[in-house]
Amino acid sequence: MATLKVPAAVPPVADDCEQLRKAFQGWGTNEALIISILGHRDAAQRRAIRRAYAEAYGEELLRSITDEISGDFEVMRSIHHWSSSPHALASPDLSHSPDCDDDATQRAVILWTLDPAERDAVLANEAARKWQPGNRVLVEVACTRGSAQLFAVRQAYHERFKRSLEEDIAAHVTGDFRKLLVPLISTYRYDGPEVNTKLAHSEAKILNEKIHHKAYSDDEIIRILTTRSKAQLLATFNHYNDAFGHKITKDLKADPKDEYLKTLRAIIRCFTCPDRYFEKVARQAIAGLGTDENSLTRVITTRAEVDLKLIMEAYQKRNSVPLERAVAGDTSGDYERMLLALMG
Amino acid sequence: MATLKVPAAVPPVADDCEQLRKAFQGWGTNEALIISILGHRDAAQRRAIRRAYAEAYGEELLRSITDEISGDFEVMRSIHHWSSSPHALASPDLSHSPDCDDDATQRAVILWTLDPAERDAVLANEAARKWQPGNRVLVEVACTRGSAQLFAVRQAYHERFKRSLEEDIAAHVTGDFRKLLVPLISTYRYDGPEVNTKLAHSEAKILNEKIHHKAYSDDEIIRILTTRSKAQLLATFNHYNDAFGHKITKDLKADPKDEYLKTLRAIIRCFTCPDRYFEKVARQAIAGLGTDENSLTRVITTRAEVDLKLIMEAYQKRNSVPLERAVAGDTSGDYERMLLALMG
Repeated sequence: MATLKVPAAVPPVADDCEQLRKAFQGWGTNEALIISILGHRDAAQRRAIRRAYAEAYGEELLRSITDEISGDFEVMRSIHHWSSSPHALASPDLSHSPDCDDDATQRAVILWTLDPAERDAVLANEAARKWQPGNRVLVEVACTRGSAQLFAVRQAYHERFKRSLEEDIAAHVTGDFRKLLVPLISTYRYDGPEVNTKLAHSEAKILNEKIHHKAYSDDEIIRILTTRSKAQLLATFNHYNDAFGHKITKDLKADPKDEYLKTLRAIIRCFTCPDRYFEKVARQAIAGLGTDENSLTRVITTRAEVDLKLIMEAYQKRNSVPLERAVAGDTSGDYERMLLALMG
Repeated sequence: MATLKVPAAVPPVADDCEQLRKAFQGWGTNEALIISILGHRDAAQRRAIRRAYAEAYGEELLRSITDEISGDFEVMRSIHHWSSSPHALASPDLSHSPDCDDDATQRAVILWTLDPAERDAVLANEAARKWQPGNRVLVEVACTRGSAQLFAVRQAYHERFKRSLEEDIAAHVTGDFRKLLVPLISTYRYDGPEVNTKLAHSEAKILNEKIHHKAYSDDEIIRILTTRSKAQLLATFNHYNDAFGHKITKDLKADPKDEYLKTLRAIIRCFTCPDRYFEKVARQAIAGLGTDENSLTRVITTRAEVDLKLIMEAYQKRNSVPLERAVAGDTSGDYERMLLALMG
């Protein structure tokens, strides 16, 4: 259900590196060439290119990208700090006066080029450091990645930031959100298919009682959502629906604008219908004046190798317009080119 | 700092298997032979023996051990369920009328034969299911194993029990203990040597304030103990000592019999002085009438390949008697033989 298009005959890694090097060294911008290569290579191929590029030219590919495509300083700093090249800590050149399109393009190309686990670690770090209640990145990373993948993110976080992800969330997030998000990201869920039906019934009842009493941050709600396996939770939510006549997400809409309730609903939707969850993120990113580029880039770069096809189908169904067309209408230049490349 | 003695020339795995098979098949008990082999093989060698034994005889080694050394039903059931042999779910034969020594010997031989991560998973499962406030097994597993090792325990737990460890703890433990133990076992601590001195100072102050107000289960105490790296925590505890004139463990002794406070002290001692922590567990297991065999077995089987030498040194220093002599005086028969083998 990925959308990424890799050519039938992928050029040798050395050729890709050489082309990229030429793009970085030429006069003027060569974003189109960079995108035409990296936007059509899968995670393993991008990893091989990064390794071969660093060996051949003594410079990290990510550093070369940020030198070529000027953009947002903060992401660059984060990336540069990552790289172990001798230039890693050099100050970036801000004289380019980067414009918004450059920012968005750079961010998209860099996030895409990273390994999935590294990418999630960078996104989660940004979300933890600049945390605000409307941010759903931590929920997405915790609930739409498999158990092994989530653990790989936590390992990449150690390597990159010399701290643990849960440590940063616990230090920056407060109150009920902390109580919910720290265990959500720390859990190593069992990912087998086994379901305990009796347990699904009893825990659906617990959830219903707590929700009925508006005890949304009760320990039991948090325990169930943060420790049970995905298969078990799906059974619990289904039974909730059968036993109480409506979806649990509907019962969690008492105050539709409450961000904590929105977070609970996002967790449940990430488990039950990740494609429709991400469709909504993309829809809201495009809707209205201006584009929420960070959200749009996040959906497309994190799902292009996973289930972007399903998300695009859900978008078409919901909005009667293809997501590609909506993206093309709302973005421009290299940023548009990059997103459309990843959408196949 | 391990005590395990492996012979200079280890016999081929096939020979070990053949000797073990003979011990299991002969008339009468051959515990001495079983102990003389398994009690002198390291984790990798035991793993190789288990694999080769199952291939050669179509039966799990652990199943053969429980058939030969009669003992405690529950551990056997747990082990048998693990094994994938055709006999795995057969009812154990209870007609042996196992006595206490057999129970203890069987438990020691089986726990020792398991891989360290499997062993911890079995111990943690037992602790979670039969949880009571005085049980320190979860603290030991969470705080004296490295981050990668603790994660291996959680993986072994999935494989064995088809659930997650944090799920079982959250379901069986309640109140402040749950609030503390679930994040303690779920964390993937950063394990690098970096220390943030400013942070150590500010968090020592937070700990002191909360302890001063007897807010022992405050979110901040739990956050610090369950998310910071070991190196960072050691710096924090040292600064606590310097700034407030006594050890944090002393300030946590307001009510020496309170099990929650004892648990907090155990966590800190597992980080700061695991050898002296385990010395105390061994001392208390031996002290008084009768022996706490489960605790003694746990200390010796889980530390023989890690730091049992240091624990024995601490014991000698504290009690002016060698631990081997104390163990020999307090135990007998095959159980004594097994423990002394692991103590080198």
